[in-house]
Amino acid sequence: MVYIGIDLGGTNIAVGAVDEEGRILSEASVKTLAQRPFEEIVRDMAGCVRRVTDKLGLTEQDVKSIGIGIPGVADENGTVLNCTNLSWFNVPLAAEMKKYFDLPVFIGNDANVAALAESYAGISRGCRSSVMVTLGTGVGGGIVIDGRPWNGAHGRGGEIGHMTLMPDGVPCTCGNNGCVERYCSATALIRMAQQECRAYPDSLIMKKAGGDPARINAKQVIDAAKEGDAPALRVFNSFVNYLALAINNITAFLDPEIIVLGGGVSHAGAFLLDAVRALLPRYQIFKALPIPRLELAQLGNEAGIIGAAMLGK
Amino acid sequence: MVYIGIDLGGTNIAVGAVDEEGRILSEASVKTLAQRPFEEIVRDMAGCVRRVTDKLGLTEQDVKSIGIGIPGVADENGTVLNCTNLSWFNVPLAAEMKKYFDLPVFIGNDANVAALAESYAGISRGCRSSVMVTLGTGVGGGIVIDGRPWNGAHGRGGEIGHMTLMPDGVPCTCGNNGCVERYCSATALIRMAQQECRAYPDSLIMKKAGGDPARINAKQVIDAAKEGDAPALRVFNSFVNYLALAINNITAFLDPEIIVLGGGVSHAGAFLLDAVRALLPRYQIFKALPIPRLELAQLGNEAGIIGAAMLGK
Repeated sequence: MVYIGIDLGGTNIAVGAVDEEGRILSEASVKTLAQRPFEEIVRDMAGCVRRVTDKLGLTEQDVKSIGIGIPGVADENGTVLNCTNLSWFNVPLAAEMKKYFDLPVFIGNDANVAALAESYAGISRGCRSSVMVTLGTGVGGGIVIDGRPWNGAHGRGGEIGHMTLMPDGVPCTCGNNGCVERYCSATALIRMAQQECRAYPDSLIMKKAGGDPARINAKQVIDAAKEGDAPALRVFNSFVNYLALAINNITAFLDPEIIVLGGGVSHAGAFLLDAVRALLPRYQIFKALPIPRLELAQLGNEAGIIGAAMLGK
Repeated sequence: MVYIGIDLGGTNIAVGAVDEEGRILSEASVKTLAQRPFEEIVRDMAGCVRRVTDKLGLTEQDVKSIGIGIPGVADENGTVLNCTNLSWFNVPLAAEMKKYFDLPVFIGNDANVAALAESYAGISRGCRSSVMVTLGTGVGGGIVIDGRPWNGAHGRGGEIGHMTLMPDGVPCTCGNNGCVERYCSATALIRMAQQECRAYPDSLIMKKAGGDPARINAKQVIDAAKEGDAPALRVFNSFVNYLALAINNITAFLDPEIIVLGGGVSHAGAFLLDAVRALLPRYQIFKALPIPRLELAQLGNEAGIIGAAMLGK
């Protein structure tokens, strides 16, 4: 028996057949072409499902379930309430997929799905509770408790990026001020670097960006900090401090066994991990108790397929 | 069969025999006299356990378990790591109690225990997930998922009072700055009222406190706000805004079915509840999704016994 996992993105759809252990056995992909009617997109997804099972010589009877990770929110019935990247609002995704297969269809948020993947086949395997924090353009979050993704009672759970970190802080796209996403994302790192470079135009960051603040990206900031550039280090240390505060809020509230950092900024690797780890003890109350492990995600792009598949486990 | 619940406080120890539904069948209590050796305190607790079972004509064989709620933190083995009110550090509470009874002994934090009580016999009965926020001298928190208290993987969970709300804010006793406790407790309400009364000494708050800012208490501030006093209303509205932010962080992260307000400040009743409820929608992302119910705790002082007893369920 296999589990089908579908990673639905704004650009590509990646589909895989996954075994009980979270290993991908076969894969297929297709362009999303997001402006099409959603029925056409689902038809192509179904085609990919057939291709990955055909490759393995399997039929529908050999498939336990289909899981779909989406960059948005779905309700319990598998209707996508809100998926901005695809301009999908109230799209009956599960019902449409069931026209092709007589199988259970599960839908999950992509950040939750990534957290689930890590807990089945990645760094948090074997942990009873884990929280994944995805540091990308925004900040996503996923909670796994006892091997199940925790989406909350109303599908609002895991929105770590929209916990308030600075009530009087930077306005967020969500309408609030000072969300975690405004201080701990790649976007935030770039904004802070641009500010710093106005005061310190000789920063190595500016050299890496070809002298144009608008071309600064997160990797340049981190690379400049790694090379010891003082303005870059100030930005990086400030970013790390915000991230440590956000992580401390997760710890004080849920205290999971492990907290996993994923997303583009986490590619900074040990340089980021060590800096955050060094700060965490400062913020912990109950100094005598152990604190959650902090680790980097292991699965990369495959997490989308694996986690979506594991929605059916 | 009954469950024994023990509410261990700094002043009194309240013991009850509780049925499967969370109803108290008999009660006994004794002074804590916290400065004594802990063995004496446990001996008196054991004596109370005998009294509540004797009253019901029951023996040890009719008791399923003993649960103890403490104003502190215990490890998995039932050793109290930290209980400041009693000056207990590394006290083997469960082991000492087992000298008197051959029964399972469970130990829980008092805020977690109160949350558990509400979920068995109070306002959150029947809810799959609940978070209780206790607004007292400090701010406590308790999480219940699937009928079980969630203390976290390292006993750090539910410390809502020490989530950071204002990173550059008021210093907290825990060593951090701007903890929820510094903005959403009775202590915080009093501090904000004292500040306001320095600028507006004619405030009704000052009249209620006999003209002495040092005598201001939370009830006076809320009563003055209820009576329409402008400085008191400014303080109250500011307090409510902080509380709504803290509650929004709980929602964005865990999204429980229900959030329950308890503790002394919650005695403000509908005046507080309605004000917080009115603010919550403003902070919610995903406007289309329902938000957690916000309610007042129902059980009052009995929560300590009931919740401690239900640790054994």
